[in-house]
Amino acid sequence: MADGPSAVIESGEDSLIARLFAPIATHPGALGLTDDAALLAVPPGHELVLTKDALVAGVHFFADDPPESIARKAMRVNLSDLAAKGARPLGVMLAFAIPADMSGEALEAFARGIGSDCSLYDAPLLGGDTVRTSGPFTISITAIGAVPAGQMVRRAGAAAGQAIVVTGTIGDGALGLALRLSPDRPGFAGLGADEASVLKDRYLHPRPRLPLIRALREHASAAMDVSDGLVGDLGKLLHVSGVGGDIEITRIPLSPAARHAVDVEPALLEVALTGGDDYEILAVIPQHELGRFNTQATAAGVGVTVIGHTRDGTGLTVHDASGAAVSFARGSFSHF
Amino acid sequence: MADGPSAVIESGEDSLIARLFAPIATHPGALGLTDDAALLAVPPGHELVLTKDALVAGVHFFADDPPESIARKAMRVNLSDLAAKGARPLGVMLAFAIPADMSGEALEAFARGIGSDCSLYDAPLLGGDTVRTSGPFTISITAIGAVPAGQMVRRAGAAAGQAIVVTGTIGDGALGLALRLSPDRPGFAGLGADEASVLKDRYLHPRPRLPLIRALREHASAAMDVSDGLVGDLGKLLHVSGVGGDIEITRIPLSPAARHAVDVEPALLEVALTGGDDYEILAVIPQHELGRFNTQATAAGVGVTVIGHTRDGTGLTVHDASGAAVSFARGSFSHF
Repeated sequence: MADGPSAVIESGEDSLIARLFAPIATHPGALGLTDDAALLAVPPGHELVLTKDALVAGVHFFADDPPESIARKAMRVNLSDLAAKGARPLGVMLAFAIPADMSGEALEAFARGIGSDCSLYDAPLLGGDTVRTSGPFTISITAIGAVPAGQMVRRAGAAAGQAIVVTGTIGDGALGLALRLSPDRPGFAGLGADEASVLKDRYLHPRPRLPLIRALREHASAAMDVSDGLVGDLGKLLHVSGVGGDIEITRIPLSPAARHAVDVEPALLEVALTGGDDYEILAVIPQHELGRFNTQATAAGVGVTVIGHTRDGTGLTVHDASGAAVSFARGSFSHF
Repeated sequence: MADGPSAVIESGEDSLIARLFAPIATHPGALGLTDDAALLAVPPGHELVLTKDALVAGVHFFADDPPESIARKAMRVNLSDLAAKGARPLGVMLAFAIPADMSGEALEAFARGIGSDCSLYDAPLLGGDTVRTSGPFTISITAIGAVPAGQMVRRAGAAAGQAIVVTGTIGDGALGLALRLSPDRPGFAGLGADEASVLKDRYLHPRPRLPLIRALREHASAAMDVSDGLVGDLGKLLHVSGVGGDIEITRIPLSPAARHAVDVEPALLEVALTGGDDYEILAVIPQHELGRFNTQATAAGVGVTVIGHTRDGTGLTVHDASGAAVSFARGSFSHF
């Protein structure tokens, strides 16, 4: 059968794993990647937080992105989910499917990217699987985290009359992608090389907001990470929480590069607010917790900005500078 | 850029997940698949056992296999790893990449297969991710299990002078694959339709030996599941345990169908012993534990057979009926 499983003799998987990934898998529970499974002790009094995101070349990253960057993106989109839930990483399980034309050098670079992020975020590689594919390079990571029992920050916890906050700046990743797809758009033509680099880097290298996990656990009523666009993601959070909300465009934090692009081409504002790839934290904070939350966020080195408030009712209203409601053609990015 | 990520508006992912998978994800920790992550309490006094296997159409299954069967294979190869470690399933995380030409009916059938195995093996769907791919249908499952602390059965625990046992029968899955790839081989030509069905079914539908987990924890010094071929997998187990071993071909349990094929075409014995896709348990049992292990296995409804013994030294020797050492062109199947 033309596309049937091969019965050809091959014997490189074990040696590939040993050479590239066993040196990374230094956690004792990884068992040197020589067992069928990994072993992990969960801290007493804690619950597990589990998340799994897959990335496909040509869909979630460019096939010619540097393999280290692809590895880091795959790690970080998962760690960002843990951060949003207030969870500390315990480790990751990694599976990836290698196309026939992927070079040994590219695989080594990919392994380096995984290893450096495992160290950087104290998220040890525990195990996984490597397979061949006739298709594009595909990566799946399951990130395992822990929270003190009962303290996971959910999407569904927001109540009316609370502050809606975001970390960092919004839209850089989406503008970075748009810049790569359409570099000749007027909003991008006037950007300096440094500004363009900032946007492209934000698309390639998310920054999971793990320093914020304690502040979120202690003060947030609800949180999620912004991966599919601020407007759509906030809409989902409000919906599952059973509340409505209002945010003001003028309060949404933009980086200088994003501000420059949007000032030149106002249509890019919609890309920034709905495009996704932010991996910032969107959280809802009760008013009486806001001072302490801000203090802890500042101490953690994470900028946070109040962009609006929840209210009774349903739906999200986005207000422009005059207070008028703005609508967008697309609420959020989805890969389907 | 031709193969760059699309910025096209799409919004079906949430509704696909909701329609097909949320009804399966009934475990409270799945949070109805509406959150960024799943929440899981680990039983007190237990450790986690984590395994992750990926499957690609055309490599690990045939692209035209029934989607329910593909789902069940993906579930079971992972649950088989938990079984070999003596671990009870707590749940699974599922990611899959959908090719453009995959029909809605096929996706529904795939979801049914996942759901039925989640129920059958008490391994609830906790979360995951669905993505598009330009390549073949690709599935990654992370299975999360638990063992009483300190009781995970490792590969590396075998000592000299212990019994080497396998569950069930060996070679059916590999012969089922060979039969599909080369139905005209002499060994297959004389098989009855029932015999051919048995072999093909064993390739498609592994049977994770979860009923054996307590017996393994209480009596095995080492264990793994046979996925890449008995000879090669036993070689790995002996190597990481630092012992040698001898097994006798005449003691290796074959099903009637496999016996029939091998009797007609003796060359198929090598396929049976090195081909893989068995998903039986290979375990090493100290002699004084063997009686109690057998009793518990019988009570659990799992057949076990002693096929040889470990010894001081290194390496695996496979003996034929005359006692002579047999060698194989390939030790085990590897996808690389």
